[in-house]
Amino acid sequence: MLPVAVDAVGGDKAPGEIVAGARRAVDELGVPVLLVGPPDRIGDPMGLDVLACTEVIDMHDDAGSSVRRKKDSSLVRAAEAVRDGKASAMVSAGNTGATMASALLRMGRIKGVARPAIAIPIPVPGSTPTILLDAGANAEVQPEWLVQFAQMGATFFGARYGETAPRVGLLSIGEEDTKGRPQDKEANALLRATKNVHFIGNVEGRDLMTTDVDVVVTDGFTGNVALKTLEGGMRFIQRAIAERIPPELFAELWPHLEPLVTELDPETYGGAMLLGVDGVCIISHGSSSARAILNAVGVARDMVAEDLVRHLREAVQTG
Amino acid sequence: MLPVAVDAVGGDKAPGEIVAGARRAVDELGVPVLLVGPPDRIGDPMGLDVLACTEVIDMHDDAGSSVRRKKDSSLVRAAEAVRDGKASAMVSAGNTGATMASALLRMGRIKGVARPAIAIPIPVPGSTPTILLDAGANAEVQPEWLVQFAQMGATFFGARYGETAPRVGLLSIGEEDTKGRPQDKEANALLRATKNVHFIGNVEGRDLMTTDVDVVVTDGFTGNVALKTLEGGMRFIQRAIAERIPPELFAELWPHLEPLVTELDPETYGGAMLLGVDGVCIISHGSSSARAILNAVGVARDMVAEDLVRHLREAVQTG
Repeated sequence: MLPVAVDAVGGDKAPGEIVAGARRAVDELGVPVLLVGPPDRIGDPMGLDVLACTEVIDMHDDAGSSVRRKKDSSLVRAAEAVRDGKASAMVSAGNTGATMASALLRMGRIKGVARPAIAIPIPVPGSTPTILLDAGANAEVQPEWLVQFAQMGATFFGARYGETAPRVGLLSIGEEDTKGRPQDKEANALLRATKNVHFIGNVEGRDLMTTDVDVVVTDGFTGNVALKTLEGGMRFIQRAIAERIPPELFAELWPHLEPLVTELDPETYGGAMLLGVDGVCIISHGSSSARAILNAVGVARDMVAEDLVRHLREAVQTG
Repeated sequence: MLPVAVDAVGGDKAPGEIVAGARRAVDELGVPVLLVGPPDRIGDPMGLDVLACTEVIDMHDDAGSSVRRKKDSSLVRAAEAVRDGKASAMVSAGNTGATMASALLRMGRIKGVARPAIAIPIPVPGSTPTILLDAGANAEVQPEWLVQFAQMGATFFGARYGETAPRVGLLSIGEEDTKGRPQDKEANALLRATKNVHFIGNVEGRDLMTTDVDVVVTDGFTGNVALKTLEGGMRFIQRAIAERIPPELFAELWPHLEPLVTELDPETYGGAMLLGVDGVCIISHGSSSARAILNAVGVARDMVAEDLVRHLREAVQTG
């Protein structure tokens, strides 16, 4: 297969952990990887191929303008490599907005898709994750976009977890079809009329970490708030428990809790997918370590092998 | 003081736990209580005074129409008792929408308040809770209402926790003032110009369970999703931990974890406050047990003693 383009200079732990994760992907998964970034910023590429460029978009750069201005940045070059058939997919733990903008401007949208959305796995230990979208690409949405998010989210869930008719819910503030804002009620009605989605109706925030639903759609504002609320809550509780248990007891406890902590760790899932652009684009958490990058490259490889983009196109066009 | 009117027939565990909680409030707090409900539905009032009525609004009744139709319901009668000076406050664990509608229609709004909002304490073990509002009264809001939510939330926080200039944040999807939807950006600008609020800027979902902010304002759709997401996440993690630890080890752990579980329990905080109506109205969780009602009556007593309604009126009018 074509290599996966990995933005070597994006993320809090770049380049060290990023390059190390890419190296592990080659060694452990056998997936070819192309590091993208300025060679002097990458340092030791650990024997991996480098697509050299001269610029870097920082975490705090404005997404839209930096992508237009920094045409020789790692993000723009990674997206171009996918567009030009030099890479099969891109992975970045850098500036999320700029990653989206690079993918959107260079790869373009899948024909028929109104807006790409960020799909993120919410861990449900002991089960497949719940896919939440949009987790932040579009602060405001039209009801019709939510239908496409449902179609794309269900397709992605199917490609990743092999479940062909995943249950899709609309995030709202009550289970009845009449609950929510006017836009949610309209989306609910449109989803009920959508043939290629197994729509189970409205779901609530408390359903995200359960096995009651597979794919949850909402606008990018609400989705981002829900995601960060859950991340904050999980981090808080893990810390609170660790603080309150005496060290000897904690040592006894850890073997029982470690699998749960691993299952709850976003790194386990490799990151979010930008669904709707004409290529595979994975947005990893800003704090990604080597393990997160390894897993992200693995997901990228799987989604390329599954021909995700073709399935997304078909889902949106036949719905 | 005037008695606190307790809706004896609202909530999943009514009337048993509600009446028992009211009785405990009399015995343990010395707060007079008036049970409201049909005597045949209440059963044994445990020696408490009863304001008899003939109707009950059920959990699944439509809020607006049921309040107009069932004029002799416990919720409507409880709100009238506050309006007519026969009770100092009302407490209900019943239909949230109908509780709001009863309070709004019978007590009326505080002069100058555009819309009442539900303020709910998010537990932060080891510290004062974070007050989140609106937790569900208004699915859509105007930026000006968010300013009043900030003023009312800060006033409530001050009355409950004795902190006179609590830090107020606007829930958004990034810390910069320019992040969020147009309505959030406008609210941010209005809050920066509001003199009687200590506004610290945008906060994110991950800040809710921290000591970084005291009062978080948002629309009732986002607030309700965030609240239920957190509730669901906390319930999930507590269950997951309990399932994975062998019983003997769990018994050893419990003394260390019990205080944390208690601090995380919504029952500890007595419920949500409906801020902006011309009276003290406490909305307890539908699953409230006697302990939740006891604590709710205690909060009601405190808020009456603090003259919360007068402070809210002043905060909204001088801002």
